Amino acid sequence: MNRNKLFNIIKKKESFLCVGLDSNLDKIPSFLKKNEDAVFEFNKKIIDATHSYTVAYKPNTAFYECRGSRGWESLQKTVDYIRENYPDIFIIADAKRGDIGNTSKMYAKAFFELMNFDAITVAPYMGEDSVAPFFGYQGKWLILLALTSNKGADDFQQLKVSEENELFKEVIKSSQKWGNEDNMMYVVGATKAEMLKEIRKIAADNFLLVPGVGAQGGSLEEVAKYGMNKECGLLVNSSRGIIFADNSEKFAETAKLKAKELQEEMAKLLKKNNLIS
Amino acid sequence: MNRNKLFNIIKKKESFLCVGLDSNLDKIPSFLKKNEDAVFEFNKKIIDATHSYTVAYKPNTAFYECRGSRGWESLQKTVDYIRENYPDIFIIADAKRGDIGNTSKMYAKAFFELMNFDAITVAPYMGEDSVAPFFGYQGKWLILLALTSNKGADDFQQLKVSEENELFKEVIKSSQKWGNEDNMMYVVGATKAEMLKEIRKIAADNFLLVPGVGAQGGSLEEVAKYGMNKECGLLVNSSRGIIFADNSEKFAETAKLKAKELQEEMAKLLKKNNLIS
Repeated sequence: MNRNKLFNIIKKKESFLCVGLDSNLDKIPSFLKKNEDAVFEFNKKIIDATHSYTVAYKPNTAFYECRGSRGWESLQKTVDYIRENYPDIFIIADAKRGDIGNTSKMYAKAFFELMNFDAITVAPYMGEDSVAPFFGYQGKWLILLALTSNKGADDFQQLKVSEENELFKEVIKSSQKWGNEDNMMYVVGATKAEMLKEIRKIAADNFLLVPGVGAQGGSLEEVAKYGMNKECGLLVNSSRGIIFADNSEKFAETAKLKAKELQEEMAKLLKKNNLIS
Repeated sequence: MNRNKLFNIIKKKESFLCVGLDSNLDKIPSFLKKNEDAVFEFNKKIIDATHSYTVAYKPNTAFYECRGSRGWESLQKTVDYIRENYPDIFIIADAKRGDIGNTSKMYAKAFFELMNFDAITVAPYMGEDSVAPFFGYQGKWLILLALTSNKGADDFQQLKVSEENELFKEVIKSSQKWGNEDNMMYVVGATKAEMLKEIRKIAADNFLLVPGVGAQGGSLEEVAKYGMNKECGLLVNSSRGIIFADNSEKFAETAKLKAKELQEEMAKLLKKNNLIS
C-alpha cells in the first residue's frame, strides 16, 4: 500500500488507529479455547468488530512464535483473512528483525513475499546493510525502531553520540539516506511524545508508528500535537487496551467500543489539524 | 548446558567450532529436493558428518521463517534430531530478537521452552527490560549482539557514546550488570578481531560467539590471540564455508573435511594456550 492510499484511508475512516494483535493464547477468553485454532478465532472476531475504526493491524510475531509452527499458521491465516475481507487495511508484522544483508533478505522474503505483510518492524543496531534488503518492494514498508516506549529505551537510545544528537536521532538521520518517506516509517513511543517535535525536524514526512498510548501511559493528544504532519504521518497503536479490554463473551463488542472511542478522539485531532472537514 | 559442561566438551572435542545451519532451500544440493522436507534432510546429513568436530550448531531462523510454518517444522525437527542423537551439542537460535519485556518473555518461551534451544541471539537496542526475560532459565543463554561482522556494524555500534567507550563497549559494560558469565555471551565479529583485546577488558569471563571467520574474511588465529580466555571463552562460527562448500552428492563429506580442518586448527590454538595437552 503506497503512502497516498494510506492517507486516503486515514481520511475516509477518520482514524489513524493501529490495533496490535498481541494475541496471547493464555489471555484470550476461555470459551474460545474449544476451537481448533483459538487464536485465529479470536483475531477474526476482533477484526470483524474493529475494522471500521482501524487503519492498520499489527500482529506481534512473538505471540505466534511461542506456539511454533501452529502459531505461524494462525498468523498466516490472520493476514489472509484481513486481505480477503478488508482489503483497505495496512498490515504490519511487528517482528523487530534485522541481520546481515544476506539474512535480512530472507526475512524480507518471509514477511513481504510469503506472508504478504505491508510492513515489518526492524531493529537498527546492525546498520545499513541489515536494513537495505527490506527496501525495493513496491508498496512495502520498513519500520525502523528509533525511540521505543519501554523503560530500556533509556539505556542506549538516549545516549549522546554527537554534540547535538542522541543515538535515536542519529538512527533517524542516517537512515534518511537509506530509505524515503514512501518506504520507511519509524517507531516512536507515545511515552516520549515531547521528543516528536525534535524528530519531525529530522523526519518531516515519514509516517511514525506510535506504540504506548493507553496501557503504557502515552497521551494521544500530545502525540498529535507534536507528531502530526500534513498527511497525518501517524499510526497510533493500541493492543491490550482494545483486544483484552474484556475477557467475557462480549469481548469483541467491548473491543469495538474501545476502538471507536479512540477513532472518535482521532477524528477530532484530524479535524483540528484541518486534514478532514 | 552450563558453562562448565560447555568447557568440558570443548576440551574433549578439542574444538570450539559452531556450525551455522543457514540452510537456504535454494542453495542445498538439488538431488535432495525430492525429499518431503529437504532442508531437514540436508541438516541431518550435515550434522551426522560434522558432529565430531563441532561443539555447537546455530540455525539462523531467517532461513526457516522464509518457508512459513513448514520452515518452523524443519527447524524444530533439526533441534530434536540433535538432542536425540548428539546430546552433548550446544544449540543456538540465531534469531536476533528483542522487544518490550512482556513480549521478549514470549520469545524466551518460544526458543527455550517450546523449541528447547540452549541459547538465543538478541539485539540490545531496546535495553535492559528487552533482554532480562531471557535470563533465569537454568542452563540457558542469552547471546547479546555487541560488535557484528557486517559492514553496517560501523554505522551505530562504533559511535562514541562517552570519552572512552563506543556504543558496542557500552552495550557490553551495561549488560554486565544484567547477566553474568553463566547466562550471557556476546556476538563479536571475527572481522574485528583486534577489538577482542578491548572487549576482554570489560568482559573477561563471558563466552563470545564469533561469526565472520572464512567467507567474511576473519582470521581464526587472531580471534584466539585476542579473545581466548582460561575456559576458551570462544565459539567460532562457520556457516557457508562448511555447509555449502560443495554442492554435489558428496556435500556432506566435504562439509566433514571443512569442519575437521577448522577443528584441527582450533586444537592447535587450544594447545598453544595450554587448555588441552
